Amino acid sequence: MTEMNQTLSVFALGGVYEIGKNMYGIQYEDDIIVIDCGSKFPDESLLGIDLIIPDIAYLKENQDKVRALIITHGHEDHIGGIPYILKQLNMPIYATQLTLGLIDVKLKEHGLLRDTVSARIDANSILTLGAFTISFYQTNHSIPDCLGVVVDTPLGTVVHTGDFKFDLTPVNRQSPDIHRMAEIGQRGVLALLSESTNAERPGFTPSENQVGEHLMEAFMRAKQKIIVSTFASNVNRLQQVIDASAMTDRKVTLLGRSMVNVVEIAAEHGYLQVPDGLIVEIDEAMKMKPHRVTILCTGSQGEPMAALARLSTGSARNAKINRGDTVILASSPIPGNERAVARIIDNLFILGAKVIYGPGKGLHVSGHGSQEELKLMLTLMKPKYFIPIHGEYRMLYQHRLLAESLGIEQERVFIINLGDVVDITADSAVQRRKISAGNTLVDGLGIGVGSMLLRDRKHLSEDGIIVVVVTRSKADGTVLSGPDLISRGFVYSRGEGEDLMSASSKIAADAIARLQEEHVNEWNRLKQSLKESIGQFLYAKTKKRPMILPIIMDI
Amino acid sequence: MTEMNQTLSVFALGGVYEIGKNMYGIQYEDDIIVIDCGSKFPDESLLGIDLIIPDIAYLKENQDKVRALIITHGHEDHIGGIPYILKQLNMPIYATQLTLGLIDVKLKEHGLLRDTVSARIDANSILTLGAFTISFYQTNHSIPDCLGVVVDTPLGTVVHTGDFKFDLTPVNRQSPDIHRMAEIGQRGVLALLSESTNAERPGFTPSENQVGEHLMEAFMRAKQKIIVSTFASNVNRLQQVIDASAMTDRKVTLLGRSMVNVVEIAAEHGYLQVPDGLIVEIDEAMKMKPHRVTILCTGSQGEPMAALARLSTGSARNAKINRGDTVILASSPIPGNERAVARIIDNLFILGAKVIYGPGKGLHVSGHGSQEELKLMLTLMKPKYFIPIHGEYRMLYQHRLLAESLGIEQERVFIINLGDVVDITADSAVQRRKISAGNTLVDGLGIGVGSMLLRDRKHLSEDGIIVVVVTRSKADGTVLSGPDLISRGFVYSRGEGEDLMSASSKIAADAIARLQEEHVNEWNRLKQSLKESIGQFLYAKTKKRPMILPIIMDI
Repeated sequence: MTEMNQTLSVFALGGVYEIGKNMYGIQYEDDIIVIDCGSKFPDESLLGIDLIIPDIAYLKENQDKVRALIITHGHEDHIGGIPYILKQLNMPIYATQLTLGLIDVKLKEHGLLRDTVSARIDANSILTLGAFTISFYQTNHSIPDCLGVVVDTPLGTVVHTGDFKFDLTPVNRQSPDIHRMAEIGQRGVLALLSESTNAERPGFTPSENQVGEHLMEAFMRAKQKIIVSTFASNVNRLQQVIDASAMTDRKVTLLGRSMVNVVEIAAEHGYLQVPDGLIVEIDEAMKMKPHRVTILCTGSQGEPMAALARLSTGSARNAKINRGDTVILASSPIPGNERAVARIIDNLFILGAKVIYGPGKGLHVSGHGSQEELKLMLTLMKPKYFIPIHGEYRMLYQHRLLAESLGIEQERVFIINLGDVVDITADSAVQRRKISAGNTLVDGLGIGVGSMLLRDRKHLSEDGIIVVVVTRSKADGTVLSGPDLISRGFVYSRGEGEDLMSASSKIAADAIARLQEEHVNEWNRLKQSLKESIGQFLYAKTKKRPMILPIIMDI
Repeated sequence: MTEMNQTLSVFALGGVYEIGKNMYGIQYEDDIIVIDCGSKFPDESLLGIDLIIPDIAYLKENQDKVRALIITHGHEDHIGGIPYILKQLNMPIYATQLTLGLIDVKLKEHGLLRDTVSARIDANSILTLGAFTISFYQTNHSIPDCLGVVVDTPLGTVVHTGDFKFDLTPVNRQSPDIHRMAEIGQRGVLALLSESTNAERPGFTPSENQVGEHLMEAFMRAKQKIIVSTFASNVNRLQQVIDASAMTDRKVTLLGRSMVNVVEIAAEHGYLQVPDGLIVEIDEAMKMKPHRVTILCTGSQGEPMAALARLSTGSARNAKINRGDTVILASSPIPGNERAVARIIDNLFILGAKVIYGPGKGLHVSGHGSQEELKLMLTLMKPKYFIPIHGEYRMLYQHRLLAESLGIEQERVFIINLGDVVDITADSAVQRRKISAGNTLVDGLGIGVGSMLLRDRKHLSEDGIIVVVVTRSKADGTVLSGPDLISRGFVYSRGEGEDLMSASSKIAADAIARLQEEHVNEWNRLKQSLKESIGQFLYAKTKKRPMILPIIMDI
């Protein structure tokens, strides 16, 4: 029997009030399990930053309690943080075969393969980790081998849905295990963590196999090369491109590192059925008759260095798009990528390609369940408490409204921010405590970039920098050389810029002379005076505020 | 009668292969007329840039030929370049009343009002300018007082549609003058320049009055304050907000400078019907009962300094959003603004507001005609030659496909890029010549920023800068002081960063010593050596390539 003061805690280190970098924790006394370890891409305000991962200070403080890292599926927003996080805190990883294959590529890149403990699980596995017994159920999404996680705790069952849709006619026959979900719900669910990505979208998300039908139509009509760009990880979509190619007697060639990686891993483990000899090298493909070739490539999100972008500007090394080729964008732009994708479509049209893109063409379906599917999940699970996860605030909020429409009152729903903890006891649940959580910025090889540095980068990026160098005699403070002004990113020392810089030099010299008259010698006073006098002058002339960096050398 | 060698030339200085900064030219021998003079906003790759305007080198070279600048309507992408362009080339401006009112605000800001010649026209005006006779027809769009331009030339009639839709039930009763368009087409159109913004969108754009119905429904349901955010220039939508407020017994208060400006100008000239006493100051409104107040504000595109963004973060000076208030986004995000708008919606939900947003709510309709309307225009005008304008390449391309579907063969359609000229004679039209054209970047008070400067800013923004200062004796080249290293935007000289910087210092000192041993004294060799040695070291350690700026002082 549970005692009154026993507490089960659920918290998010990533994935709420945001899209991406999913990471959730479930703690019961001295046992913690972690679910997912994602990354997300920075927006354009985070200058020079490569990646954002969760801040795991709380887990590091409690590292002796962390029993496992369980991964629901192999997308970047669920596995992308693993190599960076493992360097801070080693945890045993549990994941399905395909997911582990994708994780291993990362561990290899970071030289972590040897020191990482990982175990392959499937939908029938049962793990006993400290106070927890963990089981799984099969679900579907835009990558194979996805799991929902069922955590039996001394206080009751917690279910984490992972990402899911109810695709009842899945391409790979990995159907959502509705019977198992019904059984879990029937047995009783204390708390449900369910994903909210499409909580704003009415209806029921179409089946992936609808994409296959539209692909086939496009393939039947194409008279020359076909180029299909999609997410490399969407193995079921890749399967449908391969099938359409085989049916129309085309060979398939792969462009882009992640496309080659995924196809290799997926084919090796049987997630992708590739007829012998169907896949050929790019050089061979380019020698074949155009109507016998499909290029399957990365870059559907407009990434400037990926295969599709390079093809669209004619700068791909081995392949070329010709007038009359068909380009299919089997994807839709993730918010923020619209302009980059539009630029590529423009360039493809300029090359004379027939481009098939945009909504209404049926060449993309979401991997996430829409409102009716979210309601179906809530209905199956009948949770006592509900914590919407995976989404920005408005999505979590809409998901709460859906729960309310099913009779789950607002008091039983917890919208949590990063670090918020829901503490559940035998007779209550409260959200009062906070643990440390947030963004860790990855920049080159460095982990953890401060806000000061980003402020400087923003300043430099908009207004540039002016370096002012003065050499003085250590003996009496007379100026031996300078002030010399050098600018970068502000104006060039030609024409109009030249006048501006020489006037600034004059102002700097005056500022130095003024302080010398007053017999003021301190560096700080001099630096301040140079910054102010040059800054004010340039702002009046240009409405710009370059960073001014005075360097004083006393020798 | 026209002679064989007489040529009519049509060209674009802005607005094709792009959205925004519209500017077109029509030339016949020594007469040029210019249509529109827009600006556009830079994308995030143009660091520190405020605005993009057309490069008018060609017009400056031919300034004695330029007869007029004709403005089709008062949106920024048609008038935003005017103050910057007029400083380079003074032209008489012809525009309708409302358009002139909006232009005058800009001219005043730039101190240009006195030196600018402008003339008010309307749909019935006729201008004779050199070889041209210019008339107009009324059209509709998301701002009142829009014109199509009909240019009679010695070789035939050229029609420029401006922006248009066929709103047959317009809010302000400015109906599209279909009879006049039919008559123009019947008389014969040599060349049609027609806008392509919605050429990718099937169907017929709904009437603006549909927005009014949905606004009214939302107003009837709201129990507290209503905040409506929309484009300030959409006077007809403002009218519908004012009408809905009057009907539900609410006062209206205005937030945002451009909202106040537009309402003032539009009400003064009768484009907006405002009942006496309906508009109140914000301080007064905040003292009234919430269900008696509508706040009409700017910022529907997520602009971080605009009224809606400030309201959403609780940082507006005079106004506050409370739990239960209704916020209506009567707009849809322009591509590129999706994330900023989503952030605001999240913040509004967090404040407890009911937010009405997104497609399917009927609170926004486009101001541009969809495919059926573009086909209607082509059908009415029956042009001999067709030049799709206003749009990125894929839109111009789709517009060409629409023309083809109406029997206008590809040979008669000219997709032109900036600077391309279509030369039309009595019996042919060719696109072979190019005049100079492109983007002029406005940065602070400066006009014309080079690509080198932008490359530097990008470099600085991602990897920062390291300044290396060395002082040497002019006499014998011995180092008197340094190398001193100062970094900005790269790493801070603390902890890990400190080690990195002192190691770099050591490497710089070694590089200097090595050259001294070889008795190499030239600045360039020393600078090169410092850049290479520090650069290689830091890249190996951090995978970042900061800008390295060596400064050598010989004294």
